[in-house]
Amino acid sequence: MDASSETFEARLAATAREVEAALGVLLSPSALNGEITRPERLRSAMHYASLNGGKRLRPFLVIEAASLLGGDRDAALRVGAALECVHCYSLVHDDLPAMDDDNLRRGKPTVHIAYDEATAILAGDSLLTYAFDIIAAPETKLPDAAKLALTLALARAAGIGGMAGGQALDLAAEKQAPDEQGIVTLQAMKTGALIRFACEAGAIVAGASPEDRTRLRQFGERIGLAFQLADDILDLTSDAATMGKATGKDASRGKGTLVAMHGMAWAEAKLAEQVREAEALLAPYAERSIVLAQAARFIAGRKS
Amino acid sequence: MDASSETFEARLAATAREVEAALGVLLSPSALNGEITRPERLRSAMHYASLNGGKRLRPFLVIEAASLLGGDRDAALRVGAALECVHCYSLVHDDLPAMDDDNLRRGKPTVHIAYDEATAILAGDSLLTYAFDIIAAPETKLPDAAKLALTLALARAAGIGGMAGGQALDLAAEKQAPDEQGIVTLQAMKTGALIRFACEAGAIVAGASPEDRTRLRQFGERIGLAFQLADDILDLTSDAATMGKATGKDASRGKGTLVAMHGMAWAEAKLAEQVREAEALLAPYAERSIVLAQAARFIAGRKS
Repeated sequence: MDASSETFEARLAATAREVEAALGVLLSPSALNGEITRPERLRSAMHYASLNGGKRLRPFLVIEAASLLGGDRDAALRVGAALECVHCYSLVHDDLPAMDDDNLRRGKPTVHIAYDEATAILAGDSLLTYAFDIIAAPETKLPDAAKLALTLALARAAGIGGMAGGQALDLAAEKQAPDEQGIVTLQAMKTGALIRFACEAGAIVAGASPEDRTRLRQFGERIGLAFQLADDILDLTSDAATMGKATGKDASRGKGTLVAMHGMAWAEAKLAEQVREAEALLAPYAERSIVLAQAARFIAGRKS
Repeated sequence: MDASSETFEARLAATAREVEAALGVLLSPSALNGEITRPERLRSAMHYASLNGGKRLRPFLVIEAASLLGGDRDAALRVGAALECVHCYSLVHDDLPAMDDDNLRRGKPTVHIAYDEATAILAGDSLLTYAFDIIAAPETKLPDAAKLALTLALARAAGIGGMAGGQALDLAAEKQAPDEQGIVTLQAMKTGALIRFACEAGAIVAGASPEDRTRLRQFGERIGLAFQLADDILDLTSDAATMGKATGKDASRGKGTLVAMHGMAWAEAKLAEQVREAEALLAPYAERSIVLAQAARFIAGRKS
């Protein structure tokens, strides 16, 4: 590990602590904003699902993209926390018995194991709903137009045309293996859409020009692809202890991945290409974009 | 049935057809707004879950409340369709085996029976997400501030402090019967919050004054209570053929209802009181509020 990546990982970890502090307040037992009550078991399950030791990569991307373009950090942090609620909801529902049926997530019992299945379904539903609450709430200090743009972009990244649709395609892929274009579409929706949104959201928070917003969105697409390629490589090469979850599952279920289709050498080359393209998109921002460039390399090189 | 209620039911049915036409377009196979694709099985399940012959009472309330206060009908229709997506998502998830485990809904197989459990979970997730898309989309012709107010109010009505939290309390009530205040809270959240939102949303669509918005919200609270009381009465007195679903289930599960607690005479009196209070809230609007007053009486007197 060189000095630069050490600095980057410290920065990522510091931001993760900030995001977790924000989530801790948002998911505290106190009923907020005119709520009659927060049913405690449900709140506790939402808290458990969200404060589970993730890297908080998506909020980090929101915050760093906003920072690059001069956006307000507190607003970016709240939007990042909202996005993390959506990410964590998707993990809770994906882990359900009717979906991927996973008992472990980052080495800990999944929500339906630690609580029960009904509570896991409701905790996911409530985290998804809460994300839109957090963005629209008065405490998120952004112009109305920016909040609406975030709401719309998040709904589209998370819905049938994005993450949830990608999960539906993933379930279908277990029955009939998709072709290469099918795999690309599935991955762009299932994991790509939220990562792309993270980068675009930073631009929206900063009130960026349409050009900057498109550029950040394209950067997000590239690192989304890199993220998925790295994931597929890890699934084939890593072991369960490092990943904190079962590995080799995609292969054993017969799910097609680009890595399985084209081989490891191709995958490594493709991964490097995505990182180069991502970095090239940052060229206009020169030195100011060094953290986002590091993020792209980190995503490509991560070990878990 | 007198002439007035006949006219009202025709009006309700005509609006239901409008809402269904809007939902049909929104849930058509065409990928919209830059979506890469709409996975067909998921889209079909969302369509099945939403176009299932309901009365469309919530969208009707949005549209009539907006109409009372001079709001745009097309905008109200879109907001009503969004709200119906949230209502239908909640039915899909409530029917799941891990929740109420119902195989029939309005006489037809529930989504997890007609499709499969994973698709039902994702269809619910996607309908919920789509509601926020519909409100924020450019096709909903409202000022940004109104769209944001709708987003925030809907998220709060649907989330842990509203409908989802109410469902969590309902599940807990199967294990430990709540006291009277607990039942009131549960019902205000589980069914009351969306009905209250429907009325308040109409006021927001119309750009109403804070006073009118509060008044419509209070009207929504009263008819939400009336709705639940009528439901509890029906659960005890109706049969499955009329309701299109299993009846007497609440009683057989030992769930407390106010009707079971206080008896049918008390319930009928309480129901009449809620309707009187709801009508009294409409007094300032005089003749213009006749349809909302009819809606209150319809909710109290419905047979299914």
